[in-house]
Amino acid sequence: MSLIQPRTLKGFRDYLPAVMIPREQLMQTAREVFRSFGFAPIDTPTLEHLEILTGKGSDETDRQIYRFTDNGGRNVGMRFDLTVPLARFAAQHISTLGTPFKRYHIAPVWRGEKPQDGRYREFVQCDFDTIGTESVLADIEAVAVINNLLETIGFDRFTISVNNRAILTGLLEHLGLADKSVAVLRSLDKLAKIGREKTAEEMINAAGVTAEQADAVLRLADCTGDATSVFATLTEITSGNEKANAGIERLRDIYEGALASGVPERRLRLDVSIARGLDYYTGVIFETTLDDLPSIGSVCSGGRYDNLAGLYTKQHLPGIGASLGLDRLIAAMEQLNLLPTASTPAPIFIAYFDKDHRDDYLRLATNLRSAGLKVEVYPEPRKLGAQLKYADAHGFTVAIIAGGQEWTDGECQLKVLATKKSSQVTYRHDAPEELVEGLRQILQQPQ
Amino acid sequence: MSLIQPRTLKGFRDYLPAVMIPREQLMQTAREVFRSFGFAPIDTPTLEHLEILTGKGSDETDRQIYRFTDNGGRNVGMRFDLTVPLARFAAQHISTLGTPFKRYHIAPVWRGEKPQDGRYREFVQCDFDTIGTESVLADIEAVAVINNLLETIGFDRFTISVNNRAILTGLLEHLGLADKSVAVLRSLDKLAKIGREKTAEEMINAAGVTAEQADAVLRLADCTGDATSVFATLTEITSGNEKANAGIERLRDIYEGALASGVPERRLRLDVSIARGLDYYTGVIFETTLDDLPSIGSVCSGGRYDNLAGLYTKQHLPGIGASLGLDRLIAAMEQLNLLPTASTPAPIFIAYFDKDHRDDYLRLATNLRSAGLKVEVYPEPRKLGAQLKYADAHGFTVAIIAGGQEWTDGECQLKVLATKKSSQVTYRHDAPEELVEGLRQILQQPQ
Repeated sequence: MSLIQPRTLKGFRDYLPAVMIPREQLMQTAREVFRSFGFAPIDTPTLEHLEILTGKGSDETDRQIYRFTDNGGRNVGMRFDLTVPLARFAAQHISTLGTPFKRYHIAPVWRGEKPQDGRYREFVQCDFDTIGTESVLADIEAVAVINNLLETIGFDRFTISVNNRAILTGLLEHLGLADKSVAVLRSLDKLAKIGREKTAEEMINAAGVTAEQADAVLRLADCTGDATSVFATLTEITSGNEKANAGIERLRDIYEGALASGVPERRLRLDVSIARGLDYYTGVIFETTLDDLPSIGSVCSGGRYDNLAGLYTKQHLPGIGASLGLDRLIAAMEQLNLLPTASTPAPIFIAYFDKDHRDDYLRLATNLRSAGLKVEVYPEPRKLGAQLKYADAHGFTVAIIAGGQEWTDGECQLKVLATKKSSQVTYRHDAPEELVEGLRQILQQPQ
Repeated sequence: MSLIQPRTLKGFRDYLPAVMIPREQLMQTAREVFRSFGFAPIDTPTLEHLEILTGKGSDETDRQIYRFTDNGGRNVGMRFDLTVPLARFAAQHISTLGTPFKRYHIAPVWRGEKPQDGRYREFVQCDFDTIGTESVLADIEAVAVINNLLETIGFDRFTISVNNRAILTGLLEHLGLADKSVAVLRSLDKLAKIGREKTAEEMINAAGVTAEQADAVLRLADCTGDATSVFATLTEITSGNEKANAGIERLRDIYEGALASGVPERRLRLDVSIARGLDYYTGVIFETTLDDLPSIGSVCSGGRYDNLAGLYTKQHLPGIGASLGLDRLIAAMEQLNLLPTASTPAPIFIAYFDKDHRDDYLRLATNLRSAGLKVEVYPEPRKLGAQLKYADAHGFTVAIIAGGQEWTDGECQLKVLATKKSSQVTYRHDAPEELVEGLRQILQQPQ
């Protein structure tokens, strides 16, 4: 019989243990942080009626949807994000769930786009949202969640940029450009890439604004720095426009509330230039960059929207949410050498080389697990050298070595694998304390 | 604009918080137990080349695969289990990973079968396997994993039935029925359903064995009870057949090793009748039933196989593994009233009703989170009654109530929601200890 070639589809990938271990750890950290703010988990089906998915999407996402006709003749598609399923879910269940409704959702999504630049056709999204309230407290809380997320993952130096889109909307209204806002925003979105001069040119040529108008918009976008002066300049540029003023007050509220929530001032940045796409967000907007690797882009972005589920229900559902860029974060941690390299989740290795004592090795492992330790027993009574090679290759921290007379004498060796240093400790099945303590000390040392 | 009806596909379902919270908890428990034995996580793509998926499947699974042609003209399918992807994965990566290779994989699978009896077209599988070793230690460890899994989830009364298929194979060889084994096994598989007499009839009519032969097979299958007598009877029935003897010795080894690993004797049952399908498993086989709800069937099953990935590689890869029936377990816990009913993952609720103190509520919440507590702040300064109604409906344990003068005096009320009992504690942002201690005491009480 000829073999089938084992391979993954183009744009898809396997996760081997060394990558999957920190990935799972990251997802678990995210869950813990979300829960600590009262966000509850939900899940939705991978497949949806195609009309649900295409209802709102742009032509681009439409093209990217994996779609087919199922055995029952239904047109179905695989979800391409977690926002459209959330909208459908909320429309369907909000009368049962009530508002405010706080949920998180960590799940894969699929897009049939050209795989490039480390982008895959299957990737995990990690979203949290508060639905059914316009309260500024929910906006503030979103900033606090982002801060706690990155801090708990292990980052110290990062910047959460905050904007309120209402300020720019108010300015455009004040300048008489309300009807040109999409074109102006499209140009403004390129500011970081093409620079101020080219952005102004494009606004004048493509959006049809005057040089003075372009200058006012770009002065607003330039406006960053310490909070007091930013708020003063914003107020000056927007010249008393009511919408802009309300937007500035709300931004100030969010800024101060975030500080009260314990977000360090050094991590907060007001940046009126960020817009995040054209028309989904209507209020506050966030982006988060790593100070030591800004080039990787935003690792957590989101904002406030007016109405989540207008395609599926008449119920008005405002909300705020953000999305943690899991894969981008993993890539960043890899570049910054923040990822562990072990391919085992258990730090303790028990060498099993004395065949006659198999049950003693098993009992030892059970005792250590009862003490809350993670431990692997090598499954075959092979030569010690081969087993230690395996333990080294997999990144175990410490090996327990005991055989023959040692079992009788109630002793075993602890070998720290990185340093090759060994020490002797006493161990009996009915008195494992000294061994447990010795292992804990080794595991607490920085590896 | 007309609305799109929000609905899920037939056979698919949404997970609302009250169901998703214990579900996520269960998956996390499984991860922790797997890791404590040194099993490492992996993940594989949802979509595979169709030839990978159909290579091994039966006609039935073939029919059930969600399949389509992607935009690149490739024939693809959604995985219908985690075993075929593991086989493909192992064939592709085992030279990098080395053996023994211990992995777990918790992920959804899809089958386009008729939805009935609480079966869905999308469900999560939760598998663990040790690949590349024939050592009995790996078999023993699998029993210990199953025991730890169910115990850690919260069950005490359950039974792990263990068999070694080699015993039956040996007996059939001894009876001269080696070539009829598939037909005999197919009949034997129905024993629990149709009873001894009808099974014997079917063996005689469909498999073409004699009444004496059927009787010998069924005597083997009857053979349960205390270990010593089972092993004696098995040895007697199989009359010195070499394969059967080796099988009995291995089963004895597994039984004794499981005891040494701390699996209580009352949870172990030798049952030579269990076969689990026709030809995938070749050695030890497990099934696990809940003593208080045996009707729900096996909640954790598995066994040893000779060669995992023969369709994709010439490398011989024996292994052993089992699968935790997550949905079945959740259904059982629901029936046994073992599931919590809260729809919030945070037990502590902060009522926010004094608008002027918004930042104090936020700071309070941050302080409690820093102490490791999970806490939700109501996002809007609504009337206290409405907020407490929300807290009740979501299953919070305790509400913190503070407003006006209380903030000035450094005091707040703790209200236990189930009993409506309130108590007063002191609280200042720079001295949260008394409040934290009061909350911990309330949370430690059985709810």
